[in-house]
Amino acid sequence: MSIATTMIIRLEIRKSVASFGDVASALASAGGDIVAIDVIRAGKDVTTRDITVNVQDAGNKEIITILSNMPGIKVINVSDRTFLAHLGGKIEITPKMPIKNREDLSLVYTPGVARVCMAIAEDPGKAYSLTMKRNTVAVVTDGTAVLGLGDIGPQAAMPVMEGKAMLFKQLADIDAFPLCLDTKDTEEIIAIVKAISSGFGGINLEDISSPRCFEIERRLSAELDIPVFHDDQHGTAVVALAGLLNALKVVDKQIASCRIVVVGIGAAGVSICRLLLAAGARSIYAVDREGILSREQAYGNAEWRWLADNTNPEGLSGGLTEALQGADVFIGVSSGGILNVSHLQSMAEDNIVFAMANPNPEIEPELAEPYARVLATGRSDYPNQINNVLCFPGIFRGALDCRAREVNLEMKLAAAQAIASVVQEDERNEQYIIPSIFNEKVVEQVRLAVIKAAITTRTARRIPPDISD
Amino acid sequence: MSIATTMIIRLEIRKSVASFGDVASALASAGGDIVAIDVIRAGKDVTTRDITVNVQDAGNKEIITILSNMPGIKVINVSDRTFLAHLGGKIEITPKMPIKNREDLSLVYTPGVARVCMAIAEDPGKAYSLTMKRNTVAVVTDGTAVLGLGDIGPQAAMPVMEGKAMLFKQLADIDAFPLCLDTKDTEEIIAIVKAISSGFGGINLEDISSPRCFEIERRLSAELDIPVFHDDQHGTAVVALAGLLNALKVVDKQIASCRIVVVGIGAAGVSICRLLLAAGARSIYAVDREGILSREQAYGNAEWRWLADNTNPEGLSGGLTEALQGADVFIGVSSGGILNVSHLQSMAEDNIVFAMANPNPEIEPELAEPYARVLATGRSDYPNQINNVLCFPGIFRGALDCRAREVNLEMKLAAAQAIASVVQEDERNEQYIIPSIFNEKVVEQVRLAVIKAAITTRTARRIPPDISD
Repeated sequence: MSIATTMIIRLEIRKSVASFGDVASALASAGGDIVAIDVIRAGKDVTTRDITVNVQDAGNKEIITILSNMPGIKVINVSDRTFLAHLGGKIEITPKMPIKNREDLSLVYTPGVARVCMAIAEDPGKAYSLTMKRNTVAVVTDGTAVLGLGDIGPQAAMPVMEGKAMLFKQLADIDAFPLCLDTKDTEEIIAIVKAISSGFGGINLEDISSPRCFEIERRLSAELDIPVFHDDQHGTAVVALAGLLNALKVVDKQIASCRIVVVGIGAAGVSICRLLLAAGARSIYAVDREGILSREQAYGNAEWRWLADNTNPEGLSGGLTEALQGADVFIGVSSGGILNVSHLQSMAEDNIVFAMANPNPEIEPELAEPYARVLATGRSDYPNQINNVLCFPGIFRGALDCRAREVNLEMKLAAAQAIASVVQEDERNEQYIIPSIFNEKVVEQVRLAVIKAAITTRTARRIPPDISD
Repeated sequence: MSIATTMIIRLEIRKSVASFGDVASALASAGGDIVAIDVIRAGKDVTTRDITVNVQDAGNKEIITILSNMPGIKVINVSDRTFLAHLGGKIEITPKMPIKNREDLSLVYTPGVARVCMAIAEDPGKAYSLTMKRNTVAVVTDGTAVLGLGDIGPQAAMPVMEGKAMLFKQLADIDAFPLCLDTKDTEEIIAIVKAISSGFGGINLEDISSPRCFEIERRLSAELDIPVFHDDQHGTAVVALAGLLNALKVVDKQIASCRIVVVGIGAAGVSICRLLLAAGARSIYAVDREGILSREQAYGNAEWRWLADNTNPEGLSGGLTEALQGADVFIGVSSGGILNVSHLQSMAEDNIVFAMANPNPEIEPELAEPYARVLATGRSDYPNQINNVLCFPGIFRGALDCRAREVNLEMKLAAAQAIASVVQEDERNEQYIIPSIFNEKVVEQVRLAVIKAAITTRTARRIPPDISD
């Protein structure tokens, strides 16, 4: 599709050779519409200007080529709308009140602050009321599994983490701060997160590659008394289960009697299988490149060993094709294009297909649609988007509000049920099994469900005032 | 002094035993004026209320004692105005723009963000334009030397660090985030700061005890390509030098010919001596508990050895009393009350006394005043407050704007001269050698001076547009 887009072109114009008029006519003839001009630097010989131009998407490159080839013109930089949205970063750190005078300063800083510090030193529990801890989450990554981009490093991961912090604040009023770690060493990551944790009410692990992510989360959960949640594992699992619960209602099947095939047993896949089991699934087939996990095989990592023992009840061998024969549900968190139409045709009637690989689903939605009763993907341009954004704001809002020590299985299960419940019975259909991320009831419902589950499982250290005894 | 203060008392009232009326009359008879009542929880037997009361300072304890002794009443919590200013923390993390719809989301988060990540992965320098790095400073402490409170730990240090972040934003529009580390191990602190540094444009070390602070700063400065600045060392030194430059003009003396005694050779003392030398001082006497540092002695730490070699030109021995004989300037960053009137009487004419120990100066200002031509302290309730707040916002604003690799000696010297210059010649006198922290010219002037010094010393990687070539 060709949408008009805005770009900002920074140019150096050597005055003796070219004029701004030359630039303007070149842009006009290439179909660019000049919206604004900012002089960045006006030297004796050379001026630098930012020229904001509306163009058709397709024209972008042509315009730059034309300008670059003009004598006396040097293209310094080109920004488009996406890049502009990230310019200078997307979040800021702001005081909750202004320091207007010396009296204000003496309350929030020296000398008044000393009494507040001593109160916390005497009773560390007071950190929850007297510092930002109670509402602050660290978004921690090592940049090894960013989106579908892989190991791009901590610096390049930052735009994602900032975006996540924006969502935390906007959707759940949580103060989230990105920490992108320049180490891939499991022990070092654990040590760093532990060392910085006292200022935070929770830790959101993000985009850490498998299998290191399991050990890092397990150890931090055990060693810290604040919730630790690896969103790539559990966020995906919670939202997938929410969608599945509604999809099963649409097709009128029970989770306990369904054959469920989960493909791609990495960070998300492992958590999906565990959560499905907790939700009552009995016939799960976990499939990775090596085939269906089964107890006859030996596996190097603890997660796979555990799954092999707790799935594949019939000891089925083979791969994706064998697993899918007669299956009711396909859940894919693997890679684009691994599924074909005959795979879908081999499934049971009223099949449910969640093709969530990023950025390209396991099968193109257009291809799959005729052969799947309910279809969901990770993409926003098709119905039923399985999106983590439905989970992490509410789950942390709930965990922070009741000062949960952890995010346990019961809390995740409750979150999935809460997300599913936002879709009303009379709205629910094949095209609508999961609410929109902009549906304000989602965070509210997830928060409530998570708090109740935390209280029931005795991990809550506080009962929020709006929760009845 | 007795000022009316506001307190909030959280009470549980057991309905069968006591009524709110009982509480109200008890408060009234103790001189408390009820301003507001909030019901926190209304149970069947017990209600919990927050009662906001205006009281005279002196009455605080009496009121609480009276309430605590009433049958059926349980005092849960008491907050006063200072504590209320810290409630829930003092800073928040906010998006720079709202995510209004799916299109916004696709710009700042998936899928649009992927292109921005890849641009940084291909050219790490782009992190400065496409993330919050360029305007973000980590305020890092291990909580070992917080204010005058000593080693109170990372959690209790948080209120100071949040206050510092408020000042960074309000005075210099810098996004500062507190990281309180739960380790005192020098190597571990260095490793952690290095690992988190890629997301930050600068590191402000804070309240780390001496001598570990020297090694930590030295190593981080050498190993990172962003400015690292231990405020307790250099902030104090820069502001003290600024005050001294103006004080010397008031008494019409030259720094090169002055005898300057610096007492308390910890974090700040070492930096003060180094900066004085850089500013042209030739006769410095560094005094600690063991006496005047001199090259005849052997010292365990590198800073003292260096100072012994570069101060005390006459090889003077003895302690504070010997050093002060005929001295022109006393600069104290030691502890309260070590100085007496006869010490001051032994100094040269037109003496300058900076008694900056916290919270109590080396000599009570009232005692010192008749015997010092120019007197400065660290306190806000006397003239000439030597306050770090005059330095760190401007020095980081400048360093960030020109993307300096470090904060070098020349930049600190320039900052001190800039702070001094804000006090105009016709304003300068014994009572006014240092500007107010609310003087808006301070950050502006410090920034400019720091940028120019960074450019001259070739540590700047960018020339800000407002600086002429």
